[in-house]
Amino acid sequence: MSSLWNNRISISIFGESHGPAIGVIIDNLPSGEYIDVEELGRFMARRAPKKDGTTTSRSEKDLTQILSGVYNDRTTGTPLCAFIQNTDTHSGDYSNISHLARPGHADYTGAVRYKGFNDVRGGGHFSGRLTAPLCFAGAVCGQILERRGIYTGAHVKEIHGIKDAEFDHVKVSRQDILDVRYKDFPVINDKKGKLMKEDIQKARMGCESLGGIIECVSINVPAGIGSPIFDGLENSIAQLIFGIPAVKGLEFGAGFKTAKMVGSQNNDDFYVDDHGYVMTKTNNHGGILGGISSGMPITMNVAIKPTPSIAQPQETVDYHDMTNEVLSIKGRHDPCIVPRAVPCVEAAVNIALLAHLLDYPNFC
Amino acid sequence: MSSLWNNRISISIFGESHGPAIGVIIDNLPSGEYIDVEELGRFMARRAPKKDGTTTSRSEKDLTQILSGVYNDRTTGTPLCAFIQNTDTHSGDYSNISHLARPGHADYTGAVRYKGFNDVRGGGHFSGRLTAPLCFAGAVCGQILERRGIYTGAHVKEIHGIKDAEFDHVKVSRQDILDVRYKDFPVINDKKGKLMKEDIQKARMGCESLGGIIECVSINVPAGIGSPIFDGLENSIAQLIFGIPAVKGLEFGAGFKTAKMVGSQNNDDFYVDDHGYVMTKTNNHGGILGGISSGMPITMNVAIKPTPSIAQPQETVDYHDMTNEVLSIKGRHDPCIVPRAVPCVEAAVNIALLAHLLDYPNFC
Amino acid sequence: MSSLWNNRISISIFGESHGPAIGVIIDNLPSGEYIDVEELGRFMARRAPKKDGTTTSRSEKDLTQILSGVYNDRTTGTPLCAFIQNTDTHSGDYSNISHLARPGHADYTGAVRYKGFNDVRGGGHFSGRLTAPLCFAGAVCGQILERRGIYTGAHVKEIHGIKDAEFDHVKVSRQDILDVRYKDFPVINDKKGKLMKEDIQKARMGCESLGGIIECVSINVPAGIGSPIFDGLENSIAQLIFGIPAVKGLEFGAGFKTAKMVGSQNNDDFYVDDHGYVMTKTNNHGGILGGISSGMPITMNVAIKPTPSIAQPQETVDYHDMTNEVLSIKGRHDPCIVPRAVPCVEAAVNIALLAHLLDYPNFC
Amino acid sequence: MSSLWNNRISISIFGESHGPAIGVIIDNLPSGEYIDVEELGRFMARRAPKKDGTTTSRSEKDLTQILSGVYNDRTTGTPLCAFIQNTDTHSGDYSNISHLARPGHADYTGAVRYKGFNDVRGGGHFSGRLTAPLCFAGAVCGQILERRGIYTGAHVKEIHGIKDAEFDHVKVSRQDILDVRYKDFPVINDKKGKLMKEDIQKARMGCESLGGIIECVSINVPAGIGSPIFDGLENSIAQLIFGIPAVKGLEFGAGFKTAKMVGSQNNDDFYVDDHGYVMTKTNNHGGILGGISSGMPITMNVAIKPTPSIAQPQETVDYHDMTNEVLSIKGRHDPCIVPRAVPCVEAAVNIALLAHLLDYPNFC
Repeated sequence: MSSLWNNRISISIFGESHGPAIGVIIDNLPSGEYIDVEELGRFMARRAPKKDGTTTSRSEKDLTQILSGVYNDRTTGTPLCAFIQNTDTHSGDYSNISHLARPGHADYTGAVRYKGFNDVRGGGHFSGRLTAPLCFAGAVCGQILERRGIYTGAHVKEIHGIKDAEFDHVKVSRQDILDVRYKDFPVINDKKGKLMKEDIQKARMGCESLGGIIECVSINVPAGIGSPIFDGLENSIAQLIFGIPAVKGLEFGAGFKTAKMVGSQNNDDFYVDDHGYVMTKTNNHGGILGGISSGMPITMNVAIKPTPSIAQPQETVDYHDMTNEVLSIKGRHDPCIVPRAVPCVEAAVNIALLAHLLDYPNFC
Repeated sequence: MSSLWNNRISISIFGESHGPAIGVIIDNLPSGEYIDVEELGRFMARRAPKKDGTTTSRSEKDLTQILSGVYNDRTTGTPLCAFIQNTDTHSGDYSNISHLARPGHADYTGAVRYKGFNDVRGGGHFSGRLTAPLCFAGAVCGQILERRGIYTGAHVKEIHGIKDAEFDHVKVSRQDILDVRYKDFPVINDKKGKLMKEDIQKARMGCESLGGIIECVSINVPAGIGSPIFDGLENSIAQLIFGIPAVKGLEFGAGFKTAKMVGSQNNDDFYVDDHGYVMTKTNNHGGILGGISSGMPITMNVAIKPTPSIAQPQETVDYHDMTNEVLSIKGRHDPCIVPRAVPCVEAAVNIALLAHLLDYPNFC
Repeated sequence: MSSLWNNRISISIFGESHGPAIGVIIDNLPSGEYIDVEELGRFMARRAPKKDGTTTSRSEKDLTQILSGVYNDRTTGTPLCAFIQNTDTHSGDYSNISHLARPGHADYTGAVRYKGFNDVRGGGHFSGRLTAPLCFAGAVCGQILERRGIYTGAHVKEIHGIKDAEFDHVKVSRQDILDVRYKDFPVINDKKGKLMKEDIQKARMGCESLGGIIECVSINVPAGIGSPIFDGLENSIAQLIFGIPAVKGLEFGAGFKTAKMVGSQNNDDFYVDDHGYVMTKTNNHGGILGGISSGMPITMNVAIKPTPSIAQPQETVDYHDMTNEVLSIKGRHDPCIVPRAVPCVEAAVNIALLAHLLDYPNFC
Repeated sequence: MSSLWNNRISISIFGESHGPAIGVIIDNLPSGEYIDVEELGRFMARRAPKKDGTTTSRSEKDLTQILSGVYNDRTTGTPLCAFIQNTDTHSGDYSNISHLARPGHADYTGAVRYKGFNDVRGGGHFSGRLTAPLCFAGAVCGQILERRGIYTGAHVKEIHGIKDAEFDHVKVSRQDILDVRYKDFPVINDKKGKLMKEDIQKARMGCESLGGIIECVSINVPAGIGSPIFDGLENSIAQLIFGIPAVKGLEFGAGFKTAKMVGSQNNDDFYVDDHGYVMTKTNNHGGILGGISSGMPITMNVAIKPTPSIAQPQETVDYHDMTNEVLSIKGRHDPCIVPRAVPCVEAAVNIALLAHLLDYPNFC
């Protein structure tokens, strides 16, 4: 199903950018889990536009209302529906491009897929706005995970060639994750963050946009989670991560670098540590072997393409009249979506982890 | 489910490396499709070990027997079960490592996941041998696709820093794909292939192994296939590709390179060609926008890690006794799995494409 | 998943009886289908309480708002979310039974299932009120089916021993279905309906409740829809029908009567009619053979138990204190749910039929 | 998918009656479960034809070979594939009816569904023979359940009007179940069984066939298993039970009788018993309320139609030539399939119960 992910827990996302509301149903959550609504709000705020010129100037307050599945602040175990009203929509901004395919967007492919009947205003169901319910679902899952010590954190690893520091793939701690989480611009090294922001603002002034890479880690996932072949952690995370618009690549552990390595470099030697736990000395495997967690940090990189909405004139087609045209996109767009995609990546990983952990004896 | 992929068509894989047989059930294939059994054999042969020192010296004849779902050479529409007997198994090779976790393998994670009850001989259900039924399923899907003009082809793009030529992402043709398909060593530029083979043989002599990158393209996929958010072509391909052991990364189109690009570079301008088709001038989007095919070639790169089985002594643990140990892996192993993974990547892509195309009006 | 049905189309239901709202997401509907909102309202009204003493006196206006998936009165193809605010809730009515298990209800089983965290007010997610989103989803599917000539109609076949006439299982027509559809009390023979209503009113006065049987037929379903073993029409209809609270039995065609028949009586002889269509002379098979439609009317009976909420004192337990107690249920309850369940049965059948028809070449 | 049931565990059935083999993959079984292969054989033998004139005279030895998923007599946790070679097939028996639709069979509907490409020999994938892998899967699940005290047993409740005794729906014991299990003719009252057998033999002599009812109970299922709306025990059992060919009806607890009852009769009063367990005094609810087990015996009746293969001439069509014809079915057929369907019903229930119990904390 287009907007349904169904694997132990299900995430069913609905809504169009300029319709009355967007939202999500999360089914099969464990019952009795405390939901901290304020903390959910803080998670959602990380995805909201900033006032510093690095994002759209749209005001997406994303006030999420829980319609079901939570009672007396705890999950009931029955479906949790969250709903976000669309308020700050300027449909007029899009009126002039109704059948002009914005390059890099799903306007043309969506029109073919839905025979022209989909709601194209603001990208409709393809809008990046639909990551808000994904974030919400991931934030709910994250609270359940963190209460058991499992933390997931991401940061902007690279934008347009400017590189942040990286998490230590062997020793990354809860504190490392929390240190980045609530920064306005989520990088480890704020000096690099400042350079990135300047680059983004410059791009915006030049009617350009920038892409980047997000690094994400999950710690304290017990060994033995996931399954071989099609239902491993990598498969599930991948299926969810590619649900975030603009993602064009995903690698776990040493990822594409393994292609240049020899086996003795890439293999991570095992050892039993002083507490009797099995560990690896290095973590090129990214915490997953055979689809199953090893107990080491789960690590991945996610490639995000430059926002396709740019103010420069672009050659394109009118897919209704089948004519060649030139398009100048107006409206308020993100010059770089990477920082706002950071909580989206965490959300996707949280959902995958909770789903697989539900099979783990005594998890809930 | 661990070994079940279920999305319009289902692929249910079973078997252990040293059990009596491995195989696959493919459900929901269209009925009446001609199955060329000899051609299936040629596809399977591409995955088989070679005699040139670049692969294991095991003889995996992989004689696949179809038990159901094909009648008078055509699909019946009911489940197709294919089964491959395991014959050339030397269980003795593995007797000395029963509880020693081979670094880079799923021995340890599998033991935790299955509480020590899984069959570890030869990697059991985690063995690369389980890609044989995947290839078979992909070969069946591929025949159905090719009869409609949709061709998928992959090649070794890079091994250990030695790079092959690349397919032209805009103009790649059926002939380009077929030119590589049946080569003993599937590269575009045979000179580069020769260098790669020498490097692999050298690695084998040095008790090492090598990783690499596979490039895969699909052509003539009509525009409009796939769905937004969780059920796009990227999601489905990703879920399947990460089912191939040793895959550590996947990117579509310009992939991780988009992270360094600006929007005006990355966006692919649309135009209407002389035949009235919508095309893009460049193909950084890799033929997929919003999860949906654009009609342009679908392009991806897949990172394959070096074979974890290497003959050098490695530090590891006995996960039963929880002691630190040194392990020397014996047996006949592939010094580089990349060439044999080429048809596996094609197979995964064929399955995903056929699954989504079944929704396409008038496809079957 | 508890409240998710996922088979070509998905139906994800959320909400609790006394929470802010209930609703449903329908995913994978074909795009471009005209949705007649007024007609949806008429369908929903058939499920609403009546003012004639045969139902609860609660006012369930069930004003359904479409939040997504419909644009310019046509389905977009992306998820359709419908939402119904809960307004006329008297939580006070239930305050005295918080841990007393109402016999025949899911209070006790739900408390064990959800470890006491589910919202029990008004039955919570187990409430019959949750059939409103099911009806909505079925009404949407029904409009798509009826535009192609496929009509589903149900009626009260029996209440407490009083029997209505039956549809002709061979010749039932669209008109036969429409003749019953909008009656206040949906029976074929209004005289029998009058007797039933009197019996229901008598039950209500006597603090009792009544059960009954609903007969449902679908006409003009083309032959060849459905699949063998687990994915036949019977399997899918059954899975959905048992989603209606109070359903305790389901039979297709001659159903339990076949147990008393001999083969030559039960078998329906085939013949080619004057128009060249394959037909059967009788219809004991209920329009389904091997899980697949035969082209004959699909017929079934559904057993509905008496409403478990009765005003008489009943022996029960306090499942929190584990004590034996006596319970007198107050509140406004339906003395007989059978008439209001009629559109629910139609809805379930519509969903199953549309789901399977989406595989049918050229259906959409 | 036609022959795939996928709900926590998956059951993927393949094969045609006259192809090389039939079988099943069971995925997501817990690891480490002891499998008693001899006991599996005894379960399968209950489905095998008898030598007493009540069944077909075909010899279906159904020697099942386990190809994967069991190692050292215990489940590995990876997919279990079982395979049964077809040996005693007389395809000649069917050669004269290639395009003549046998009334009551899926010949015509299957031909339309699969556009004439399905293997029709012996009913192909629609054959009752495909219940052998279902039985095998159910027998495996049953062993896992019985080791935890959960027993499921069925018996022939009625054939052609002759009625067996019934299980006590409140007090039925493990011994009651075992007393019937291995009888050649599975009834509680052997005198009634003798009458039934005589009636079946008489039917066979008269070129007739008989239908009947099977009663099935499951005991010691803990309270709290299952989920509301679409994923309750009733939904899952129903979806699986209608996978057995010839099933035309299913009712739980008092079933269709509830239609004639008033609420105070039908409601089962709760009480806390001397051991502190919540029980009900009667069991009209059949052990399931709101889709969730109550801890009381789960009870159901299943209607089985008379075997459609009868030796009398029947009017039918040639669906290839579209002509009216007369058909006399030859071959060796069961005059009454009810006794052989008894273990099939148990198997279906075992699968549903194990699937839902896997969610139960500490079950495995």
